[in-house]
Amino acid sequence: MTRTVYVNGHYLPEHEATVSIFDRGFLMADGVYEVTSVLDGKLIDFDGHCVRLGRSLSELDMTNPHTDAEWLAIFREVVARNSIVDGMIYLQVTRGNPGDRDFAYPPADLPPTVVLFSQNKPGLADSPAAKTGWKVISVPDMRWGRRDIKTTQLLYPSMAKMMAKAAHVDDSWFVEDGMVTEGTSNNAYIVKGNRIITRALSHDILHGITRAAVLRFASEAQMEVEERNFSIAEAQDADEAFITSASAFVMPVVEIDGKAIGTGAVGKTVPRLREIYLDEMRKAAI
Amino acid sequence: MTRTVYVNGHYLPEHEATVSIFDRGFLMADGVYEVTSVLDGKLIDFDGHCVRLGRSLSELDMTNPHTDAEWLAIFREVVARNSIVDGMIYLQVTRGNPGDRDFAYPPADLPPTVVLFSQNKPGLADSPAAKTGWKVISVPDMRWGRRDIKTTQLLYPSMAKMMAKAAHVDDSWFVEDGMVTEGTSNNAYIVKGNRIITRALSHDILHGITRAAVLRFASEAQMEVEERNFSIAEAQDADEAFITSASAFVMPVVEIDGKAIGTGAVGKTVPRLREIYLDEMRKAAI
Repeated sequence: MTRTVYVNGHYLPEHEATVSIFDRGFLMADGVYEVTSVLDGKLIDFDGHCVRLGRSLSELDMTNPHTDAEWLAIFREVVARNSIVDGMIYLQVTRGNPGDRDFAYPPADLPPTVVLFSQNKPGLADSPAAKTGWKVISVPDMRWGRRDIKTTQLLYPSMAKMMAKAAHVDDSWFVEDGMVTEGTSNNAYIVKGNRIITRALSHDILHGITRAAVLRFASEAQMEVEERNFSIAEAQDADEAFITSASAFVMPVVEIDGKAIGTGAVGKTVPRLREIYLDEMRKAAI
Repeated sequence: MTRTVYVNGHYLPEHEATVSIFDRGFLMADGVYEVTSVLDGKLIDFDGHCVRLGRSLSELDMTNPHTDAEWLAIFREVVARNSIVDGMIYLQVTRGNPGDRDFAYPPADLPPTVVLFSQNKPGLADSPAAKTGWKVISVPDMRWGRRDIKTTQLLYPSMAKMMAKAAHVDDSWFVEDGMVTEGTSNNAYIVKGNRIITRALSHDILHGITRAAVLRFASEAQMEVEERNFSIAEAQDADEAFITSASAFVMPVVEIDGKAIGTGAVGKTVPRLREIYLDEMRKAAI
């Protein structure tokens, strides 16, 4: 089925959806994005993604072109026109098309470029990988210094995904100054006894929407949450490990750099967190 | 005059020149570029730019879609159709349009996206700024770790250009671990007596085509060339300073972070290097 996508106020067949070659998103990676999951036709943590979008735009001195209510209407229209039951909605906002190329920003009143499209993923929450877990390798973190802004500068995460494929594993974890920052498109965690350990928020990592929810649910479930750096060696020695992202939700990690975590099978804590997360977010979905 | 631009084999009016919203260049900054100057209707250092394009593509496991002879024919057609006497030709190659979004690369046989456009700059080599020099500020270098690959991940250089504007100067110099890496879109140099000092090539800086030519001409003119790191303090204490790029050629820098270099006026060495560079490159232009 041909998707209907949204570009600057228009709903178009996907093959007709284009942007100018002069778009700042194409020439300069001057844009930000969000990926929001859909389960049972409803948006997961929509408010969280709206808040982060606003923050990313603000950090780059870009104006948010829509109110949250307007965004919601557009998101819902994209879900409806593509009959999405389970899947994702991708949103990208760029600094627009100034009609030529210049490092300096165009005038602030230039309309931004807004693009949304859906990705249909039936059974998104029932991924078989959640039963077996991911294997990951560590790679040096060579990304820019403002990973808290969710920009489209995704070449290195993309390269790291290919390094993972070449190593016949599922993903890469970035390491900087000997410590894990995060995964290619997800936050990284280890579990030790009743404690969940994950890197504290800073410019070094994405401020995961799923991360915030999972840490809240973990605290509510009487788990201890410790926000601090950890190394690959410490992760390899943990009881369990996992990642979170808006589309993988809570995903167990069972092997790092060829070394099994715990027994090498999915443990008890991570599936429980995944279940709590999915239950709570389905209830709150809009 | 409406420009005629090149997109994937077609010559189009600039307002009709588009790429898919699914292009890897738009979604992932998965693309590389080159800017080649035109003087008197001829391409400056075309071979150098072709070699670097090939290297950038190769480092990203992308196939070069054209031979140098084919590139030359396309470049010349863009120059001719836009009657460019002095100006620039911008070339961008992305990993193409896989029709959807995924961090993993699409199959290697997916055709890349190729875009070229001209920028008309009458009197490009007679820039008044070359007489008065640039003022620069220093800013932390927050770019990714592979600046030797000329990718479109240009958001931070763009931000640094805006920091320069806010400080009422012409450009920013990036500083990492206390040492200057380069400018926002140019290589950085200082002059001490008969010595030209500039950072050595590595993953930390762009392998400037103009840099290579200028260092060669400097050696031929009996100047010493020292490739090593230098700090802002050392630069402020130098006799002269300058930058090189494909479109600014050799540009004096007369002030760094508010401190005048030497007398604060353009010195003798940099204009001489600029003259040699322009003379030699005009002779070799094709």
